[in-house]
This record gives sequence, structure tokens and C-alpha cells, in this order.
Amino acid sequence: MSLPRSFASDNTATVHSRVLEMLAEVNHDRAPAYGDDQYSEQVRQWFVEQFGEGTESFLVWNGTGANVVALRALTRPWHAVLCAEQAHVSVDECGAPELLTGCKVIGLPSSDAKLTPEVIRGAIRRIGDEHAVQPRVVSLTQVTEYGTVYTRDEIKTICDLAHDAGMLVFLDGARIANAAASLDLPLRAFTRDVGVDMLSFGATKNGAMGAEAVVVLNSAYAAEMKYLRKQSAQLASKARYVAAQFLALAEHDLWLTNARNANTMARRLADGVRGLAGLTITQPVQGSAVFATLPLAVIEQLQRDFHFYIWDERLNEVRWMASWATSAEDVDELIVATRAALGA
Amino acid sequence: MSLPRSFASDNTATVHSRVLEMLAEVNHDRAPAYGDDQYSEQVRQWFVEQFGEGTESFLVWNGTGANVVALRALTRPWHAVLCAEQAHVSVDECGAPELLTGCKVIGLPSSDAKLTPEVIRGAIRRIGDEHAVQPRVVSLTQVTEYGTVYTRDEIKTICDLAHDAGMLVFLDGARIANAAASLDLPLRAFTRDVGVDMLSFGATKNGAMGAEAVVVLNSAYAAEMKYLRKQSAQLASKARYVAAQFLALAEHDLWLTNARNANTMARRLADGVRGLAGLTITQPVQGSAVFATLPLAVIEQLQRDFHFYIWDERLNEVRWMASWATSAEDVDELIVATRAALGA
Amino acid sequence: MSLPRSFASDNTATVHSRVLEMLAEVNHDRAPAYGDDQYSEQVRQWFVEQFGEGTESFLVWNGTGANVVALRALTRPWHAVLCAEQAHVSVDECGAPELLTGCKVIGLPSSDAKLTPEVIRGAIRRIGDEHAVQPRVVSLTQVTEYGTVYTRDEIKTICDLAHDAGMLVFLDGARIANAAASLDLPLRAFTRDVGVDMLSFGATKNGAMGAEAVVVLNSAYAAEMKYLRKQSAQLASKARYVAAQFLALAEHDLWLTNARNANTMARRLADGVRGLAGLTITQPVQGSAVFATLPLAVIEQLQRDFHFYIWDERLNEVRWMASWATSAEDVDELIVATRAALGA
Amino acid sequence: MSLPRSFASDNTATVHSRVLEMLAEVNHDRAPAYGDDQYSEQVRQWFVEQFGEGTESFLVWNGTGANVVALRALTRPWHAVLCAEQAHVSVDECGAPELLTGCKVIGLPSSDAKLTPEVIRGAIRRIGDEHAVQPRVVSLTQVTEYGTVYTRDEIKTICDLAHDAGMLVFLDGARIANAAASLDLPLRAFTRDVGVDMLSFGATKNGAMGAEAVVVLNSAYAAEMKYLRKQSAQLASKARYVAAQFLALAEHDLWLTNARNANTMARRLADGVRGLAGLTITQPVQGSAVFATLPLAVIEQLQRDFHFYIWDERLNEVRWMASWATSAEDVDELIVATRAALGA
Repeated sequence: MSLPRSFASDNTATVHSRVLEMLAEVNHDRAPAYGDDQYSEQVRQWFVEQFGEGTESFLVWNGTGANVVALRALTRPWHAVLCAEQAHVSVDECGAPELLTGCKVIGLPSSDAKLTPEVIRGAIRRIGDEHAVQPRVVSLTQVTEYGTVYTRDEIKTICDLAHDAGMLVFLDGARIANAAASLDLPLRAFTRDVGVDMLSFGATKNGAMGAEAVVVLNSAYAAEMKYLRKQSAQLASKARYVAAQFLALAEHDLWLTNARNANTMARRLADGVRGLAGLTITQPVQGSAVFATLPLAVIEQLQRDFHFYIWDERLNEVRWMASWATSAEDVDELIVATRAALGA
Repeated sequence: MSLPRSFASDNTATVHSRVLEMLAEVNHDRAPAYGDDQYSEQVRQWFVEQFGEGTESFLVWNGTGANVVALRALTRPWHAVLCAEQAHVSVDECGAPELLTGCKVIGLPSSDAKLTPEVIRGAIRRIGDEHAVQPRVVSLTQVTEYGTVYTRDEIKTICDLAHDAGMLVFLDGARIANAAASLDLPLRAFTRDVGVDMLSFGATKNGAMGAEAVVVLNSAYAAEMKYLRKQSAQLASKARYVAAQFLALAEHDLWLTNARNANTMARRLADGVRGLAGLTITQPVQGSAVFATLPLAVIEQLQRDFHFYIWDERLNEVRWMASWATSAEDVDELIVATRAALGA
Repeated sequence: MSLPRSFASDNTATVHSRVLEMLAEVNHDRAPAYGDDQYSEQVRQWFVEQFGEGTESFLVWNGTGANVVALRALTRPWHAVLCAEQAHVSVDECGAPELLTGCKVIGLPSSDAKLTPEVIRGAIRRIGDEHAVQPRVVSLTQVTEYGTVYTRDEIKTICDLAHDAGMLVFLDGARIANAAASLDLPLRAFTRDVGVDMLSFGATKNGAMGAEAVVVLNSAYAAEMKYLRKQSAQLASKARYVAAQFLALAEHDLWLTNARNANTMARRLADGVRGLAGLTITQPVQGSAVFATLPLAVIEQLQRDFHFYIWDERLNEVRWMASWATSAEDVDELIVATRAALGA
Repeated sequence: MSLPRSFASDNTATVHSRVLEMLAEVNHDRAPAYGDDQYSEQVRQWFVEQFGEGTESFLVWNGTGANVVALRALTRPWHAVLCAEQAHVSVDECGAPELLTGCKVIGLPSSDAKLTPEVIRGAIRRIGDEHAVQPRVVSLTQVTEYGTVYTRDEIKTICDLAHDAGMLVFLDGARIANAAASLDLPLRAFTRDVGVDMLSFGATKNGAMGAEAVVVLNSAYAAEMKYLRKQSAQLASKARYVAAQFLALAEHDLWLTNARNANTMARRLADGVRGLAGLTITQPVQGSAVFATLPLAVIEQLQRDFHFYIWDERLNEVRWMASWATSAEDVDELIVATRAALGA
């Protein structure tokens, strides 16, 4: 008996077997706690290789933790964080960023979950007015919550704009691997090289178990990081087992292989249903997600055999999310079922 | 080649092989995220079995996370948390409890890291005086930071005292397994049955990788827990892998076996060095730790071959911490070396 | 020589002479500090008279302080506060509500700074979803930031809606006196009698110097108020001088006389310029403010002789704010100048 | 009929008549709000005259507000504030500093409410250890809560020590005027000139109504102050009336005259009862307070006619606090009554 195929989230997927194997490989002898072990050091070196000299990285437990630790470093409580209205930091973290930073997190209008220079510029207001929170951070999600991807140039333009305004740029990289795969660029090309100050790096959705990192690209914000991580309850005692997850994904660029699979499966799905009468793909399929509208009756029929979310009930819009573990067979079953349900 | 024996912390130990095996066992198919999977449900049932009907439990990443989520539930920001001056929540969490609760965490004087009714009573002051923080929670660590253990009756007396004063009792159970082993009592006997309102339950030091729980015994504080956990960045997405760690320790009471080993090894060590000229054991050895004073030159000599902390530099007091993984051979080597260094 | 007439804010006005006189009247002998004096008690009685038995009131320094203390009482940090996008608590308090409550303050779209049941209903989403902040408080400003006034029935409908959803209603009453004057209703008729749970009561704009109150109508939230006020740095030591300001305004309903004057002057101004070619009054004139669009050249010409703010630079919209101290002569000068500048 | 003489607090005193007169003097025409008025500017100039070029000052409502705004500027949430165990910021502000800064406020042992270099040095521990809050601010109260006064040299030594350790020095100056009077030194001599980084300056106890200031001596911390003040709800809209209180006290050095009276009255009282059998003065009388132990029956008899606090019930220790308004007649009545009650 098999469980229903899930396109609900990349969080429902298993852990890659190499991750489990690496956990076993590091599980010998004693190791210093709290990141002073050799495996944690290897991960730090890997991040230097990916993002360049001077990069500092801090392993944490999960995506909300990574985002919060990073935003705490970049802000003081009278600041504002500007992001797209769909941003995870604004609507899916139960107010953790507001609580931990004290800041106002301002979701700006967007149709594709990407920010534009125009929208950002319009939100940089009342500078120097003590009655208003002061815009301090532009937070970009890459890949966005709608499966869209910022180009390198788009990020550069936003970084330049932000820095000119005395602001900083944070990149929520819960799915940064999928962005690298989508852009076919080295990680640093669309982050450090274009001005991103800090980012969170997601491994969990990429095949790990529970492992993320805060990556500090602007070294002015590195020194206080260790206190922020600990005070935010994001410092693992047996840190080697968090590090091991990253080591497994780093080996032979497994992270990239995994991300490519997820992206490929999303495109395969989109290609398989695009153009069907009654179904409209609503966002560019640039990462691992497909957003589509289709009749409610069809949605409900499909949900009997597949797990996925209705993203917007007013529009009958669904989100189909592929993962590192999604197979062509998984996708094809959904395509066949969708075509059948739509009478195609 | 072998690494030096470590008595530095139970955080330097490996993960128990059953934990790794269980991670592999749950690693198939898709599973709902965020704790809606069957393994998480099994863990919740296990906590009900251990602590009784109505118990609610919430898995989190680490001990600081567990303590903070629990204290947030029990307090409002004008409250005070009373604890022993050595308490982890007061001195080893980089101010996380203060930041997340807003409360004043007040460390009360103690020679053995245990609170007494007298000391607590003396700190319940200025009730109703709006200029003073209002004592709200008594926080006990069990096993304490000094390896001492509260008896069931001691906890009951403190719970009665606290409840009479309109206060609540939280138990920091990072090493609660060692307490159960030491007291030879069921978990509920020295917690729920005597009035503890909430506790954190540690698995990490007990052989897990990174897994703790908040256990709610006073059901008045359960409803808001899920928001507190998420907002505190302590909710795992791939929660089945946190649950699996607990399942491994629950099976055949492995948690108790592990705790007993740690306690036994600490006693073995204490027995092996007690009475040596120049060495004084400074705390009752009731859990997995041995505290002792010995000449600095001896300490430094031992540290060449063994990892452990000088706990109090003014006293030349060391902490030797055993773990689930400490072997009799480990202990005996330390005993032999200590005897030799002391010229015994 | 006289300073330019100011229609910038009711904060630029003087203090009413009766307020100064009352400060002198209470300035004899010693008085208990922190509100235990007879004058503070008289103010508490006055609030009971205005809002009914069981009302509890807490004097504070200023409007931001009053709003923050109230919102802290009504929320926990994973809650959301819903308000109009123009609300002072969202955009003019430098993030004080976010910092002090930890909550997300969500500004909802509005053309007249009033919330509608439809808009509120649309924002009551994801209830029980731990990933999302939970809507807890509807915050109404009365008179609104656009000089509009909720009717009694409108407030009742919103209170019923909020309570049905398990939410609470807070009313930011920085200009509540102007609302009472505008509605020609007793204070309690459009607050307590229709379900408002808590409100801030402004005296400063009404002729006081620096005096506001938190008025607790839902007694479930009264007990902890004194701690919240003190911890929010809003408890006056020499409280009799804050109380005296309220006593002066309470005497012979001076507060109502003052509010009526401000409202009358705003209407007089609106009546004097309405219909002029090139000028459009953009909001109903129900309180003490007039919002109007007019050509930028005209605005700049008028600003040479009168103080007032351009509210929306994109629209060339100005705000003219009358106060308790605005005279008909002040208004008529502005009318004459405006007519002249517009070539009328 | 006259109310009982009060030695309870300098907060029970009246407001100086010049303060009320100045309120009336500024009460004409419109004035810009929020501190942009001429009176606020005059106060800022006065502070520059007192503390030297580059001094920046920010008027606030009350002492807790001033302390909190200052400490927020000097800290990040993983820092610790070191103070004497009796310090107002630690025990009399209902946890406002902890809530608003997120820091741990650590009260260090002291017999006279003064910190010593030794005690401070002992508390500068675990630097660089991410598990521990990092000492950042030494907070001195001057005059202390026990009526004792730091000498200029003592403050210099502490400032040097703090700065050498990478820390900052804050001075809680709720009674700084009394310290200047006691030391017979210009304000800057024992603050800026010896290294104090920031201080709160109290006017309320000195004859004002409700007016304090944050004075920034280390200009590195000035830029963000205005946001901190506003977000902490400490910015007055009709700021000219807060400024006026300072102007009244500045005129002809009324602040110093007032402080001298309070100090003189305290000394007169101490001199009048010192040496009486059964009465012991327990602290040096250097400011406006007298602490003394005497038999409980005597205390209770005196409290029938005089208001004052029992400071420490275990010791039968009382606090007699003089103020700017205390007269020799007030003092002599208490002396006579005390002598009589003690049978002298």
C-alpha cells in the first residue's frame, strides 16, 4: 500500500539517504558541542567556497529561526522590513519576526511575490520622521513563495537601490538551491556579487532533516551573530548532526542535483497540464512550484488521490509543489488524473 | 587513534544507534509536516502514558527553546521567574528567557543549585505593588545544574507553596530522565502528581540528536502552546524526524537505560576518587555529574588527556559529566589518572 | 506681532486657562504619589459617571502611551491588531505597538479611515493556523485620522462582529470628545453600550497639557492594568497634576465645549470654501478636520501665512485641523485667503 | 487643617510656584509640537551649557521613561546591565528595562547602594561566551537609592574600568541635582568630564510636575535617540509645557537651590536625631534621605503624624526623604516627635 502522492509541500518529502548515511558517519567518538567540531568547521568552509572569502555562516534549526536571527542582526526595533505581501517572513511565521525584532514587517503589493524597484521606492517614505518606522531592510524571497525567481540583474538593481537609501538587503533562501538551479548560476553570482548583505540558506526542503544556515555576506554584521543565534534558541548542542546534513548535500553538489530535480518535476507538471481547457497556470514556473486555477469540482476530485493545497479559495487556485524526491511517475500520475478530471 | 575521553558535557556524546535506526525507519513515503504525522502522534501518546490523561506535549528543537516556550506560556512581561542562581534559564541561555518573556529572571542563592521553600518564600515580595515585578513562576531544574536531585516531597512542598501564593511551577527537565532514574520513580510521580504545571523534557543529552519537548500538565496552559512554539521558531517542518528520536528512546524504556548508565558512571567515578587526599567532592552525586575540588596543577595535568570544565576557577572546582555513552572503561581511566596525579 | 494661524494640528494649540488654574488649585500640601491622591480618585469617579458602573480608568501621559498600554492588555504576541491603514497605531507611533505588544498591526484598506464590517471580515483569516498571527483586536479610531466619525450603529455592528469572532474592540479616542460632540451622544452610548472593550481617552488635544487615560469597559482586562501602565513608563509620580487637567475639563463639561468649538470651526471652514473652483473637500467633515485638494501653487501661497500639512503630496491634499482654541476669526482669515488665492 | 508632614517621598511634594508661572508664560499663541518649539530649544541650549558642547538632550515624561530610553540606546538584547541591587532600574520599574531592552538587569550586592570597582570587575565575566549575556552597561544611580553620593573620583574610576572593558556608563540622575549640590561641583564635572556616556536628568523630584531628560554625552548614541523616545511613548506632543518646567528650574539656578534645600533638610534631620538611644542612622547622609533604624513601636507611633516608609521590615529601618519643599519646621516637628517617642 502506498500513501497518496503529495504535492502539498517540500516539507512532506523524506530525507535523502545520503543525509542519513552522513549522520551515521559522524556518529563516533566525542565531539565538541555547539559548533566547535570538525564537521561544523567543514560546513563553514563550504560556505566560504560557495560565497567567497570572508563569508561567515551560522547553522540553525529551521527557516523561521534563520530568518529571525538574520533580521535581528540587521535591524533595531524602530525599523521596518519591506517585503512582498506573500513573504513567509510576513505571513507564515506567526509573527516571529515582529516579536523578535520589534520591527514592523510591511508586505508590499505584488502579483508574483517579487518586489520591484518601483514598489520598494514607493515604500521608502518619511525618512527621518520619528513618528514613522524607518525602512531598513528589503527582504527578498528567492525562490519566491509563488515559485518565481529574481534574475541576477533584478537583485542587483534592488540592492543598489536599497544601499543608496541606506538600507540593507536580506534574502530568504529557504529554496535558494532551486534558484541557483533555475538561474544556472553559482550561488554567489546572484547574492554576494550583486550586493545581498545576508541570507538564510535552506537545506531542509532540499533533502535534509532539519538544517538551515544564516550566511553573513556583509561582514559588518557578523560579530554579534553568535549571541543572536543562541538567544534566539537556534544553537544546536550536538551541532555535528546539523553540520552532517549540510555535508551530505555539499558532497558532489547533491544540493544542486536535488534542486534540479524539483525544478524539473515542476516544469514537467506544468508542461503536462498547460493549455488544458479549464486550467490556467497563474505564475511563471521558474522553481519547484506550479500555481494553477481549475474548477473546484476538479480540485476536490484530485484531492482524493493527491495531497496539495488550495492556495486561494476565491480563485480556485492550487499550489502543486515538487521536491527533491518527486519522481516523474508522481508527476505523470497527477497529469493523467488532471487531464481525466478536466475531460481532456 | 582515539579522541580524548570527554567528561565535559553530555552534549559531546554520540547519538544512540537506535535513534539513527529509527530515523531510517520513518524515512519512507510522504508524511504530513509540522507534527500532523503518525510518529508525532505516537510521541504525544507516549507522553500521555508517562504523565497521565490530559497531558499535552509539543516537540521542539532544543532545551533553550523548550524552556522559553514554556515560560512564555506561564508568564506576562511584568512577572518574575524565580530560580536558583545556577539555573540554566538564568545564566546559560544568553538572556533568551528575558528577551522572549520580557520577565525578570531572578536567581536566588543556593549552595547546591536547589531552591528551598525558605528561599522561595523570601522572594515572594511586594505582591500587588505595581513598581515591582510580580513573582509568577518557580523554575526548578531537575536534575539540577550541580547534579543534585529534588525528592518528590521537596517538589510537592514547593508546588504547594507556589500555588498557595498564586504562582506556577515549571521544571526544566533537560536531564529529567536522570532524575527519574535517580529517584527510581515514574516520571509523573515527581511532577504531575505533586503539582508541577509544565516541564521541558530533554532527549538530546539522553542519546538523541536534537529533540526536546514541552510537556503541559496544567491544561489551562495548553491552548496557546502551538502559537508560542511556532512564533518561537521551535516548530519543525519535517517533524517526523524529531518524533522518531523520541520513539527510539521510548522503545523498551531506552531513555531510562541511558539515564541509569549516566548516573551509574557518575557514581562509579565519585566512588573511585572519594577520599583521595587533595580531592573533595563538593556536591551530592545524585545524577550524572561529579563536582570536585582538586589542586590546579592536578586539574591541568588531567586536562591533557581528558576533556572537562573547570566550573569555578576561584575554588579549583571541576565538573565531570557522565553521559548515556560513558563506559566503565572511560571512568576507570579517569580514576586511575586522578589517583596517579594526586600521588595516591 | 502675532504668530501665523495654525491649522497644522490640535497639538500646536495652547492649554485652556482652566487647566492651568486647576494645576494651581491642587498645588498645596503633600499628596500621595502615583494616583493615590484625592484628585486622581475624583477623575476615576468622573469616568464611572461617563461610562457607567464598573468602569476602571488609568491616567497616562500621552496618546501613544494610552494606546500601547491598552493593546498590551488585550493581546498576546501571536495576535494581530486590525485597523484602518491610516490608523495612528499603525503608522504614527514609530512601531511602539509592535514593539510593546509583539503583535502584527495590520492596516486594512480604507478610503475614509473607517473600517467596514466587510473589510474586517475579510481579514479574519487562518483562524487556528499556527503559522499565521491570529486576529485578536479591532482597533477603531474615533474621530478617525480623516476627521470622519463612526455612528453608534456602525460601532455596534463591528463590536458584534468582532465578539462573534472571539475578538475584542479597542477604540483610539485621542479625539473621542470630538466624536461625542459630533454624534451628540453621551460617551457611553457609542462605546460601552455598544460593546467597546477598552478605549483611550484624549485630553491633550482637547485643551489639556499632557494627559490621557486608558478606560477599561470590559472588566476582564482591568486587574493587570496597573502593572502594564507602570512597566510601560506611563505612571506619573506626581499624578495629581495629570488628574487636575482632567478635572478642569470635566468641570461644567468643558471637554464638550472645547470639542464642539473645534468641530464647529472645522465646519465653518468647510462651509466657507466648499464649492470653490479648484478646491475639493475630500472627506466628510464630521470632526475637527477638513481635508481638501487644491492646486499646489495655491497651497504654497497659503502656507506663507498659515501653518498646515500637505497630507498627500500625490493628490495635493491638505489637512486643516481646528482645535478647542481655534477662533472664527482664525477660520475666516483662512477662508478669505483661500478664496483669494483661488481667484474666487 | 493641615495634612500630615510627609517624609515619604520627594514625589509627594508640590510643584514649585515658578514652574506653574512658567507654564502660564509659555501658554500663548500656537507653538510647533513635538519639541520643535523655542522653549524646547532653550532647554536643549541649557543642557549644552551645563554639560558642554555636543551634548544632546531629549525631554521625556518620567524617570522610568528616561532610564528605559537611555538603556535602549546603549544596549542590544543579549547584553547585561550591571547595577547595585537597590537600583531603581532593577527593582522599582516593574521590569520596564528588561521588557524594553530585552537585557538582563543584574543587581550586584552593595551595602550603601553604590557600586565599587571590585564588585563591577567581579561581574564582568564570560566575555565572548555566547551562552551568557554580555555585560555592556554599568548603571550608577546618583544620588543613590540610599541617599549616598559617588565622588567624582569614584565615578571616574568606574568609567575608566567600564571603558577598558568595552562597556558604557549610564547614570540614573533622578536626583542628580542633589548630587551636584552635595558634591558642590558643576554637573559636568562628575559626569561628562569623567566619562559618563549617558544620563537621565530628573526635574520632577526637584520641583517640577512631570519632566525629565535623557542627556547624551557620548555622541555616538545620539542619532537614534529620537526614534527611541517616540517608540517608547515618551515624546510629548505639547512639548513646550515640558520644556517650561525645565526653564523654570534653570532660571537663577533654581534647580540647585531646590536641591540644596532638600539636602540641608536631610542633614538637619539627621543631626537632630543622631545619637539618640535606640536610633541608628544607617547610611551616610549625603543627599536628601535619612535612613535609620529604631524600635517598631516608635516607628508606628511616629507614623500616626508623619508619612514615611519602613524601608526594611526585617531591620525596622525607615527612610525619611526630604524634598525641595521640606521646611525647617517640618523637620523640627519630626525631630521633636522622634525624641519624645524615644524618651530622649
